[in-house]
Amino acid sequence: MPAPTLLVLDADPLPRLGRLTGRATIVHTGADSLAARLPEADVLLVWDTATEVLRDAWAGEGARPAWVHVAGVPVDRVLGPALTSSDTVVTNARGVFEDAVAEYVMALVLAMAKGLPGAWEAQRARQWRPREVLRVGGTRAVVVGAGPVGRTVARALKAAGVGVALVGRAPRTGIHGPGDLDRLLARAEWVVAAAPLTEATRGMFDARRFGVMLPSARFVNVARGELVDEAALAEALRRRWIAGAALDVFAREPLGRDSPLWDVPDLLVTPRASGAFVGQHDRLAAQFVELWERREAGRRLVNVVDKARGYVPGH
Amino acid sequence: MPAPTLLVLDADPLPRLGRLTGRATIVHTGADSLAARLPEADVLLVWDTATEVLRDAWAGEGARPAWVHVAGVPVDRVLGPALTSSDTVVTNARGVFEDAVAEYVMALVLAMAKGLPGAWEAQRARQWRPREVLRVGGTRAVVVGAGPVGRTVARALKAAGVGVALVGRAPRTGIHGPGDLDRLLARAEWVVAAAPLTEATRGMFDARRFGVMLPSARFVNVARGELVDEAALAEALRRRWIAGAALDVFAREPLGRDSPLWDVPDLLVTPRASGAFVGQHDRLAAQFVELWERREAGRRLVNVVDKARGYVPGH
Repeated sequence: MPAPTLLVLDADPLPRLGRLTGRATIVHTGADSLAARLPEADVLLVWDTATEVLRDAWAGEGARPAWVHVAGVPVDRVLGPALTSSDTVVTNARGVFEDAVAEYVMALVLAMAKGLPGAWEAQRARQWRPREVLRVGGTRAVVVGAGPVGRTVARALKAAGVGVALVGRAPRTGIHGPGDLDRLLARAEWVVAAAPLTEATRGMFDARRFGVMLPSARFVNVARGELVDEAALAEALRRRWIAGAALDVFAREPLGRDSPLWDVPDLLVTPRASGAFVGQHDRLAAQFVELWERREAGRRLVNVVDKARGYVPGH
Repeated sequence: MPAPTLLVLDADPLPRLGRLTGRATIVHTGADSLAARLPEADVLLVWDTATEVLRDAWAGEGARPAWVHVAGVPVDRVLGPALTSSDTVVTNARGVFEDAVAEYVMALVLAMAKGLPGAWEAQRARQWRPREVLRVGGTRAVVVGAGPVGRTVARALKAAGVGVALVGRAPRTGIHGPGDLDRLLARAEWVVAAAPLTEATRGMFDARRFGVMLPSARFVNVARGELVDEAALAEALRRRWIAGAALDVFAREPLGRDSPLWDVPDLLVTPRASGAFVGQHDRLAAQFVELWERREAGRRLVNVVDKARGYVPGH
């Protein structure tokens, strides 16, 4: 039996797949030739997770791989209707990013509480500007998204003495349903978006929700830009409906030089860094190889995405 | 019996001591009249902890209060030889600042790991500059100073997955002695100074010690500026002996506009903010009132400073 053909939708740096030598025929492709090469592939590794090119490519003619692995957690850019309704199994990189994202959320929360951006502006101006800073312990947070990322973020906040309410798509033990959200937002100093982008979550942080939040609230998004009405957030900050925000993800990435978001008051902009930790690519490649070996051994794949829901269900 | 006279060495904002109304004759003083008023005082509350004026004042003529309370943790600015050799009991604000300082250390560590200062420079320049960030979990830290602040910092780092070695003035269970310091410094990504300023610790972070540290090490000082040879630190950063540093305390405060520290590469300067949390003054005043009431009731004072050592011993 010939080795299965593994098609890799490339991004820089390429994945280290040396362990698959002799066990897979590895074909690399960019976005341009993806559609033409899909029919010959048994497996597709979506290494470039920033592109939506697979949506159209999948809808074209010819055979399709039986397994698609996405080397990232969100799958909304990959899952077009044709792939969603197919028999192809889709897996994602659950397990690689949770701790890194939780550290990043803590970095943003603590930086805002301690006024670090203002301190560094003062440093640049060579000015000693003492002022009192906020304690994080004893405050309250709402984390929206009760998957592995949201739960890991919640654990990190709790370890810092923050009271955390976790909101998921439906109420269950220890997790609030969407019906509790507005009530929880009305008393939280920290609101963290950690939900997948689905039709239920798109645009959920809108003018009304920013209006419900405390004037002392600070909002953090490390999930998907499209969860947020960015213009409404900018307006809420300008009108001081809330005290601050930090966005690591945006509806359009990279954020263009002409974006109005760069200089909204009390808004921190970072370039999708929450999961971009040193070593991530080796972890992602190793995870894919592990899944490959499970499949090769005839074992059940893990991290299987529920394509109708748009994420890996569970727990 | 007349109410005891409480002399308050004032700073802004004044302490709220309403609970002592009728139980103490409260006399407020600035630095200028401190020496003249000391003889009439039964108790001195050093509310202004930034001044060294008590050293000379205490050495003057006349009676002296039997109890001095310092509304801060470090007592090196207060403890001159005359007070140290007297029978007067000195207490400090142990218990008020530990959690706030630990949060501040975590804020600085995480900000450096996640490259936040660089991200905000990019934001100001309206530039999307993605880059990989460091994980904090799995790294190693040395915390120098095994008192309540150092131990609380160590706990916070451990909660974030950092392996922590705590170094105190002498080895004991769970705490390394000074003899282990260089060996520990040689393998730590984070070095946190949380020790009191004593003759044993003054200038302990010097060129030799920065030379022992890893090129990837980052140094944080939230204790006393005089622990550090600031010129040697600047040089170590310029020569890239270490990767970064964050100073919240300085040998001379406030840092003058002409200080060379403001623009040392990879050095973050913040204005003594680690303990300056919103609510600190009420907490400090309440702590003093509690001590006053213990004394009034004939109970033993807590937070008593060992004047020869220069800190509250224990644990």
